[in-house]
Amino acid sequence: MTPYELWYWPGIPGRGEFVRLALEAGGIPYRDRAREKGVGEEGLMADMAARSPEPFAPPYLVAGDLVIAQTANILLFLGETHGLAPEDRAGRLLAHEYQLTIADMVAEAHDTHHPIDVGAYYEEQKPEAARRSASFRDARIPKFLGWFERALQGRDWLVGQRWTYADLSLFQLVEGLDFAFPRRMAAIAGDTPRVRALHGRVKALPALADYLASDRRLAFSDGIFRHYPELDHA
Amino acid sequence: MTPYELWYWPGIPGRGEFVRLALEAGGIPYRDRAREKGVGEEGLMADMAARSPEPFAPPYLVAGDLVIAQTANILLFLGETHGLAPEDRAGRLLAHEYQLTIADMVAEAHDTHHPIDVGAYYEEQKPEAARRSASFRDARIPKFLGWFERALQGRDWLVGQRWTYADLSLFQLVEGLDFAFPRRMAAIAGDTPRVRALHGRVKALPALADYLASDRRLAFSDGIFRHYPELDHA
Repeated sequence: MTPYELWYWPGIPGRGEFVRLALEAGGIPYRDRAREKGVGEEGLMADMAARSPEPFAPPYLVAGDLVIAQTANILLFLGETHGLAPEDRAGRLLAHEYQLTIADMVAEAHDTHHPIDVGAYYEEQKPEAARRSASFRDARIPKFLGWFERALQGRDWLVGQRWTYADLSLFQLVEGLDFAFPRRMAAIAGDTPRVRALHGRVKALPALADYLASDRRLAFSDGIFRHYPELDHA
Repeated sequence: MTPYELWYWPGIPGRGEFVRLALEAGGIPYRDRAREKGVGEEGLMADMAARSPEPFAPPYLVAGDLVIAQTANILLFLGETHGLAPEDRAGRLLAHEYQLTIADMVAEAHDTHHPIDVGAYYEEQKPEAARRSASFRDARIPKFLGWFERALQGRDWLVGQRWTYADLSLFQLVEGLDFAFPRRMAAIAGDTPRVRALHGRVKALPALADYLASDRRLAFSDGIFRHYPELDHA
């Protein structure tokens, strides 16, 4: 089969990484188009503008005649097509519910450093970022991770008997939070042992070993998850 | 069949209304549980806490043994089960992509009045709300609605040849924006004729006529879409 084409901003893990993890863990051939030589952000924006209908934003996945945008939607497709989610209706919907809740928290994590204007610099919204980060650290992180902690009671994986794309995404969410809010995450680690254990199980998946050790795995920097020490407190 | 049970905060249209519109337009029997006599918010919170796994937040839909949370996930289920979205894979995924993009804009509309802390009052974050609303009005409304405008080029409905749940949701999004930002929406109405026309087509659907004229249809007030005159400018 023709490999899928993943299109995402080339310099950051961002939302593209949730798709990359599913592709890698599923052993699904793909090309990471904007990271290919001579393509980059310009190539991404040109490709996106030429699609009809155009995606609202990266990531999007080109799968033959299909052009699928919205991270959770791409994962829904990959889950159904490649067995990365349960086949039964209840399991399929529950995996998607977890993914959409992860997406909500990712958006909130982004807004900690851009609470006012996504088109302006962090430096133009620092006092507001400090206030938003405080409520994120004190209220939202415990609420979201506490919910996942309860969802994992008595279970190794969020849905069913093996990993799904939702587990990979929860792993990536924890990775991002650990990068952006290391002091806060360390302070609450004892309250989220099952989330921590799931993070470790995903990290140890044989299917991900090569990828996580490779230079295909991008480090966090100035994308959605950012580490500003002034925004992190225990 | 046993009617579905919709659970959502009883006093506001909010995210529950996207589900209600799909149920009503699809002629699908349902009970609006928290609005039934003697139930209310307390009954909702008690029911939610007793579910396993518990939904992260309302709305959720109880359909026999299934408990489905996350608005877009509920609509995915209703679309598949009741023909409120195309049956082919491309159409089904595209309807969901539109829905997820609408959900992103709904979250941003909420954050115009709560940019700092969802757990605090608007009055505690008014200067920040004014700044966030300015970028929402000037940059985000044109970006989102302009994208839907292009998606509707040469089409009566977003996907396929008849309405889907995504069209109902775009109608509701416009309703909310018209309520919250009437001056801004009036100023850009000429730039979004196809979005306006779709809004009119949904409003005129025979399947929705009874509902929209009934007291089941809740008015906007102090929920996700709020009208603060100081946050609205042309």
